[in-house]
Amino acid sequence: MEKFWFILLSLVLSYASSEASQCSIKGLPLVRNISELPQDNYGRAGLSHITVAGSVSHGMKEVEVWLQTFSPGSRTPIHRHSGEEVFVVLKGSGTLYLASSSHEKYPGKPQEYFIFSNSTFVIPVNDVHQVWNSNENEDLQMLAIISRPPIKVYVTSLPPSFCTSIFAVTMLFRTLLLYSYLWIETFAPPTLLNMLSRFIYNDWSMPHTAAKLKFPYFWDEQCLQEHVKDEL
Amino acid sequence: MEKFWFILLSLVLSYASSEASQCSIKGLPLVRNISELPQDNYGRAGLSHITVAGSVSHGMKEVEVWLQTFSPGSRTPIHRHSGEEVFVVLKGSGTLYLASSSHEKYPGKPQEYFIFSNSTFVIPVNDVHQVWNSNENEDLQMLAIISRPPIKVYVTSLPPSFCTSIFAVTMLFRTLLLYSYLWIETFAPPTLLNMLSRFIYNDWSMPHTAAKLKFPYFWDEQCLQEHVKDEL
Repeated sequence: MEKFWFILLSLVLSYASSEASQCSIKGLPLVRNISELPQDNYGRAGLSHITVAGSVSHGMKEVEVWLQTFSPGSRTPIHRHSGEEVFVVLKGSGTLYLASSSHEKYPGKPQEYFIFSNSTFVIPVNDVHQVWNSNENEDLQMLAIISRPPIKVYVTSLPPSFCTSIFAVTMLFRTLLLYSYLWIETFAPPTLLNMLSRFIYNDWSMPHTAAKLKFPYFWDEQCLQEHVKDEL
Repeated sequence: MEKFWFILLSLVLSYASSEASQCSIKGLPLVRNISELPQDNYGRAGLSHITVAGSVSHGMKEVEVWLQTFSPGSRTPIHRHSGEEVFVVLKGSGTLYLASSSHEKYPGKPQEYFIFSNSTFVIPVNDVHQVWNSNENEDLQMLAIISRPPIKVYVTSLPPSFCTSIFAVTMLFRTLLLYSYLWIETFAPPTLLNMLSRFIYNDWSMPHTAAKLKFPYFWDEQCLQEHVKDEL
């Protein structure tokens, strides 16, 4: 519960403040040189991540674009999310592991796909996946495009028992829910709606229900904390 | 009105059929070589367009990714849309014309921005814009990422008078509207919701209200027609 209020406070403050250096586009030109954008590994060895257009830093509400480079052997976590994701491989090659088993208890043995320069693939919504740079000799560079649909993400992140009780209430409460739905979609910070749905797995046999919700995500964490610090 | 029914029929048929060659990913591998994807100029001189991940052909619901190459001197139409758009320039250089005047009567004289290889820019929602390859010696190649938010697009596409009358109805009708809203968002084909919002201008002094709704869009037209043909 404490975490919830901290997150809410962070989001409110991030809305109130937009002066933080690399966490805001304020003062930056409309056309930006990607090689001059902030890049970091955000605590993940072998990663270079650049948020080309993002929610926290650029105010995007419906889509994010990342440029990610993985050194040989490095990889994403095993994870899933409720938004669409498109990859465009710019350089190098690697392996995509994909478990299309969101209705099973756990991901299970994933399918393996060879990915290569100038290839593209779409991760089906909520399918557990991982991308590895399995090429020992070359970096793997990709553009990742993530959609951030509103409310649906938030609803599917609620525990099933909560969802069940919501759907069991009377007509009166259903009407109230509809109004809340519209209110949330219209007025709530998009970050609140969009970031609640990334789950990380330790391995492919970890039950979906045990996967860990990662919020804020690695590259959003820094900016959210920076906003809070500026305000305190 | 006839056009509406044709559009609706096209969409229903496009949902019913998914066997058309380049208009479906059925049978294609998950990881696709971009250079083997269908490319066309769709009647626009100097353009090469590839839908890397699209709504009509790949079933995307929230985001589309295009790879577009413009030969020297060629350009996009002057247009606006209600989804977010991110560009990543892969090769060449050119000029972005952008009129941030969606609340005025017409776009007016646009701002000019130099765009270049490895640059990125975001088109603010509903701002009228055009991209030119103004470099005489080189092709301009870009990835364009378009978000496709649901219902909002559809609502803002309605004539103002219709919107006014909708908002003037009683509580009862407002409740009905809320239900329709949710119904449309949940069950209507995303293509219907997402494609209604691209308006094209003849020049920068054309009133916003006179801009022409372009639906289906150039690269979707072919697939929608193909679906209809297959069914008849």
